[in-house]
Amino acid sequence: MDTNQIIIKMVLDRWDGSITNFNKILDSLSDEQLQKEIAPGKNRGIYLLGHLIAVHDDMLILLDMGEKMYPQLNEPFIKSPDKAVSQLPSASELRSFWNKQNEALNQKFANLTTEEWFAKHTAVSSEDFANEPHRNKLNIIITRTSHLQYHSGQLVLLK
Amino acid sequence: MDTNQIIIKMVLDRWDGSITNFNKILDSLSDEQLQKEIAPGKNRGIYLLGHLIAVHDDMLILLDMGEKMYPQLNEPFIKSPDKAVSQLPSASELRSFWNKQNEALNQKFANLTTEEWFAKHTAVSSEDFANEPHRNKLNIIITRTSHLQYHSGQLVLLK
Repeated sequence: MDTNQIIIKMVLDRWDGSITNFNKILDSLSDEQLQKEIAPGKNRGIYLLGHLIAVHDDMLILLDMGEKMYPQLNEPFIKSPDKAVSQLPSASELRSFWNKQNEALNQKFANLTTEEWFAKHTAVSSEDFANEPHRNKLNIIITRTSHLQYHSGQLVLLK
Repeated sequence: MDTNQIIIKMVLDRWDGSITNFNKILDSLSDEQLQKEIAPGKNRGIYLLGHLIAVHDDMLILLDMGEKMYPQLNEPFIKSPDKAVSQLPSASELRSFWNKQNEALNQKFANLTTEEWFAKHTAVSSEDFANEPHRNKLNIIITRTSHLQYHSGQLVLLK
């Protein structure tokens, strides 16, 4: 294993560990609990779950891995705050989306070569990337792991 | 910049960004707000702050960067849950510890060479490290950034 492979493993291990931790929390919560606010006046559990699916769907675009799986979640879970949209998917639908998305992401991540992980993501131009080589695909995993952890710390409050 | 330097920048940028984000939340909260629970029956803001200082103090040991700065925080903020210890440092003392610790960590991180970041941390043996080279110092930053984000998502609820 060379250093590049080691670092990819480090970053993907942290992603996987964060997904596993989130799943443990999610599996411990009932659909009714997901309808509750994580703290008085704050986002509901169901909103956090939909928000994460929508953000991770965006990763497919940033990583140049194909189309979004659930583009209909962008409007209610990224563009709109919680409680602004009345018609949301049910908790059980979102759980199913989440699991299918994680399977798809895992498979796509496993297929990327070392070289591809260090290539630019789609939101940076080739010119900018020449000067800012840290704006690569692996960095998307680093920032989205941070985001996932932030909301995991909130979802756990419903337990 | 070679790939190893790029990845160190990616990891330290995410750490720095997470500290900056935490500081923005912390600076927006009064000492009185920090005494409140992040959600009914959950940890108080002051406990999260003390907990993070104690965990980051442990990083000094793991990264072989000298002694802990605030070893007295281990008992009340890691070994004990919130509200178990009656005599805690004040919010303003903890804010001061936090800022001094971040200055010290920044300085120490800046002095580490690329080679040192990819060397083993102190909690892994040389034998294990030979087979598990991902258990290096840089990985400590990755895991502690995750932990910081988790609690940042909680502290923000006091706003």
